[in-house]
Amino acid sequence: MKTLRKELWFNVPERRALINITPQVEEALFESGIQEGLVLVNAMHITASVFINDDEGGLHQDYDDWLEELAPHEPVSQYRHNRTGEDNADAHLKRQIMGREVVVAVTGGRLDFGPWEQIFYGEFDGGRRKRVLVKILGE
Amino acid sequence: MKTLRKELWFNVPERRALINITPQVEEALFESGIQEGLVLVNAMHITASVFINDDEGGLHQDYDDWLEELAPHEPVSQYRHNRTGEDNADAHLKRQIMGREVVVAVTGGRLDFGPWEQIFYGEFDGGRRKRVLVKILGE
Amino acid sequence: MKTLRKELWFNVPERRALINITPQVEEALFESGIQEGLVLVNAMHITASVFINDDEGGLHQDYDDWLEELAPHEPVSQYRHNRTGEDNADAHLKRQIMGREVVVAVTGGRLDFGPWEQIFYGEFDGGRRKRVLVKILGE
Repeated sequence: MKTLRKELWFNVPERRALINITPQVEEALFESGIQEGLVLVNAMHITASVFINDDEGGLHQDYDDWLEELAPHEPVSQYRHNRTGEDNADAHLKRQIMGREVVVAVTGGRLDFGPWEQIFYGEFDGGRRKRVLVKILGE
Repeated sequence: MKTLRKELWFNVPERRALINITPQVEEALFESGIQEGLVLVNAMHITASVFINDDEGGLHQDYDDWLEELAPHEPVSQYRHNRTGEDNADAHLKRQIMGREVVVAVTGGRLDFGPWEQIFYGEFDGGRRKRVLVKILGE
Repeated sequence: MKTLRKELWFNVPERRALINITPQVEEALFESGIQEGLVLVNAMHITASVFINDDEGGLHQDYDDWLEELAPHEPVSQYRHNRTGEDNADAHLKRQIMGREVVVAVTGGRLDFGPWEQIFYGEFDGGRRKRVLVKILGE
């Protein structure tokens, strides 16, 4: 069994953004030399997501509008968590909708993806350095 | 380490449907001969889900009503994604609630499930051929 | 390849509660002796969740309020599932938002976590004995 561990770092200036990280995950897989196995990609922070969907700008705007409807940032006083001095309670909620992690099959040394699958980092509380973990297991 | 890869194909005539795929996943596991390991089951399309819940018709209707409330199909013009000529933006949103994938433990050659756990394919934009990936890893 | 399987049992007196199970998962990992691999932690019941987020009481209350807004328990008659004699349809919905499982990387014999990541059992239909499965794979 072989493994590879890699951290991807982000510092998103906006509060919220979706970033396609598929190339970085593919690069890590190539480095690992693993042909058959599984890749785990997870946000290491609890106000961010890793998820798989379509790389289409209109859809990304739809996600942002929808998440703001389901868990609005304002008024920040509506959330008990924000009494701790934070203003990011909404980001903890949004991340549960979009998910913490994806697990992707590796077949023949490649991410075993359908035609439109792309991996995204979802930032919901930007403005500071945050990490994504890539862990690959296989042979 | 042994692996097995299998695709399950669907062509759901309705826009939305939930289909129990536990027997097909069990069959793939049996074919693999793997006794201890993990099974990844994921939708290969981004307007569909794979999830685990109860095989109860009333609950499935509740899911459908609830997802339509959280991310309604109509009016299709409310979503920017649909300006690309699609009408399936809602399906991309519904799939985030229900999830892309499940990871199931394999113990003693069987899916290591609680009493009511069943695996479902969730179609939210039917009417064409779509795939689910089953990838099994173990010994 | 080594594996370890362990069940964690809960009997939550309240209808809903969030319980930090990180110490029990760490203990299982220590028992396994696995240094590099993956840990799967999943609810074995379909009205409960396993998820990763922050151990902050205000946030947990925010989650509870938010889930009640998205999928209210009352009136129980609003859900078709409850015609079977159950009153827990809302719990099946809440669990889809919060998720069934987490997969965590193991690096150097430890859960490979960011600074605030903690694993929670989310009970949405308490009052009876329920289980979480921990399955660890690696070397």
